[in-house]
Amino acid sequence: MLEGATKAHAAYLAPIKTSNRALVACHGPRPGKVGLVIGGGTGHEPCFMGYVGRGLADAVAIGNVFSAPPPGPILECAKAASGGAGVLFVYGNYAGDVMNFEMAAEMAQEQSIPVRSILTTDDIASSPIEDKEGRRGVAGNVFIFKIAGAACDQGLSLDQCEALARKANDRTFTIGVALEPCSMPQTQRHNFEIGPDDIEIGMGIHGERGVMRDRMMRADEITDRVMDRIFSEMKAPAGSSVAVLVNSFGATPLMELYILFRRVEQRLSAKNITIEVNWIGHYCTSLDMVGASISILHLDAELSQLLRHPCDTASLRIP
Amino acid sequence: MLEGATKAHAAYLAPIKTSNRALVACHGPRPGKVGLVIGGGTGHEPCFMGYVGRGLADAVAIGNVFSAPPPGPILECAKAASGGAGVLFVYGNYAGDVMNFEMAAEMAQEQSIPVRSILTTDDIASSPIEDKEGRRGVAGNVFIFKIAGAACDQGLSLDQCEALARKANDRTFTIGVALEPCSMPQTQRHNFEIGPDDIEIGMGIHGERGVMRDRMMRADEITDRVMDRIFSEMKAPAGSSVAVLVNSFGATPLMELYILFRRVEQRLSAKNITIEVNWIGHYCTSLDMVGASISILHLDAELSQLLRHPCDTASLRIP
Repeated sequence: MLEGATKAHAAYLAPIKTSNRALVACHGPRPGKVGLVIGGGTGHEPCFMGYVGRGLADAVAIGNVFSAPPPGPILECAKAASGGAGVLFVYGNYAGDVMNFEMAAEMAQEQSIPVRSILTTDDIASSPIEDKEGRRGVAGNVFIFKIAGAACDQGLSLDQCEALARKANDRTFTIGVALEPCSMPQTQRHNFEIGPDDIEIGMGIHGERGVMRDRMMRADEITDRVMDRIFSEMKAPAGSSVAVLVNSFGATPLMELYILFRRVEQRLSAKNITIEVNWIGHYCTSLDMVGASISILHLDAELSQLLRHPCDTASLRIP
Repeated sequence: MLEGATKAHAAYLAPIKTSNRALVACHGPRPGKVGLVIGGGTGHEPCFMGYVGRGLADAVAIGNVFSAPPPGPILECAKAASGGAGVLFVYGNYAGDVMNFEMAAEMAQEQSIPVRSILTTDDIASSPIEDKEGRRGVAGNVFIFKIAGAACDQGLSLDQCEALARKANDRTFTIGVALEPCSMPQTQRHNFEIGPDDIEIGMGIHGERGVMRDRMMRADEITDRVMDRIFSEMKAPAGSSVAVLVNSFGATPLMELYILFRRVEQRLSAKNITIEVNWIGHYCTSLDMVGASISILHLDAELSQLLRHPCDTASLRIP
């Protein structure tokens, strides 16, 4: 897979010679710029390597399917991304990733590369609000990468980049919905079981348990359940602006994402909330899982400017 | 679906008021420019409406799932896309589409809009070479749209635009491979049956019969069968350049497309053929069908320049 991807995206990505699990942006790291390192398991393509390039991430560490990358490649990414102004690690809050990114951060600091880590926790169904830090990072992490990448590209300090990425994470709210499991290539088995007429709301991107299993319902009803839950946490008054990401987990087609988006737009519009940016498609997948997630980033002027900042990567281009 | 898509892509697409099955590019048609009209059934998203915008198509006519659009909306598209220099219809060679686009072309000519029609026939597995005109148009049509759109945008005459689109069609070679059927929303049934360990080579984007059903094989072997067949028709000498499209039919993840691309690149490289452009992802789908297609456009200097010409649409942006 990596051989194919690096051949395909040679204009964006180059292998880091000291590791076969780390890639660096061809036009990313530069002296004086904070470096942005992302990464995680494979099986979520275009996460994470599709978001490496100018204006976004500088390097990506790559694990096995649904497994964290080892500390070694993450350290190589930190070194490759370092331009002397420090490095930001932004990754999903999963035990394996946390352990390995933390080890790599320590090793990088020993080599005099200052590292700050932001764990994405946008999956609001994964843990109650009292345990916000225990939540998982899912598709909304693409918003957080984008904000962090723009802040780095604009030459802000490590403190400022960290603060902006944290703000983006605090204001991103995602819920996923699964209809059918994916098949794990390692085991050739499904990663969970669900009845043909059932739906699970709140499911994670590796098939983690959601908050509710129910009989299949119409797209508008699914969207309403998701949006009600997002509205219960997102304190966006009338007149606010948001970015919306309707993301396929893999097998759910664009046609159905548009149907979900239609209702998302209606619900936001009814509250007089403006959709400033919408992304609809395959942004953070789970192999061939059937399902989708809805992420809302509650913008302010600063985040809006960063979200619109140009980037040029294999999977996201903002001119 | 259309409500969601037009809300999402309001910067690119506007409904044509006289039809609920026709959309026009916000920044497409202009006086003196040949207009490009595309269209077909839904269920292939981002085909076709994702390719409407500056530098690509000017209007799109939209049918039901896997069904041709009626002549009325196609005529409305021709009128909306007409800038006084004539209109090009580019669409896949299917009986329903041919009938309705031809009726619309006649109606447009009655209203003094000159129309030329190019039927895409890139699916080389769909009919033997002796019956080239009987072949179906599949994912390779995205290349043909792109060439035609660029020719129109560069202000070429209707004759020239037609000739270039025909040349692109003549030099585009696609073969699809299916592993699992899609589920038709109208019937809630599969559109064909295939064993869990079987694979069908040459299958069309609506589940049309392929050329060979076989036991499941490795990705490299699948790619070799496809490429051998493409090489048997594509007369590209060493030193040639091509564009490659590795397209998911829906449920096949990007990860697997990269694995296919890896082998495509090896095969082309062994013949000293350069990949000038590669597109890998969901370009022309079949709802949630499991499978992929490989399209090769044999470039020359003229086609290469047109393929790289800037375009700005919901699903394809070339800066």
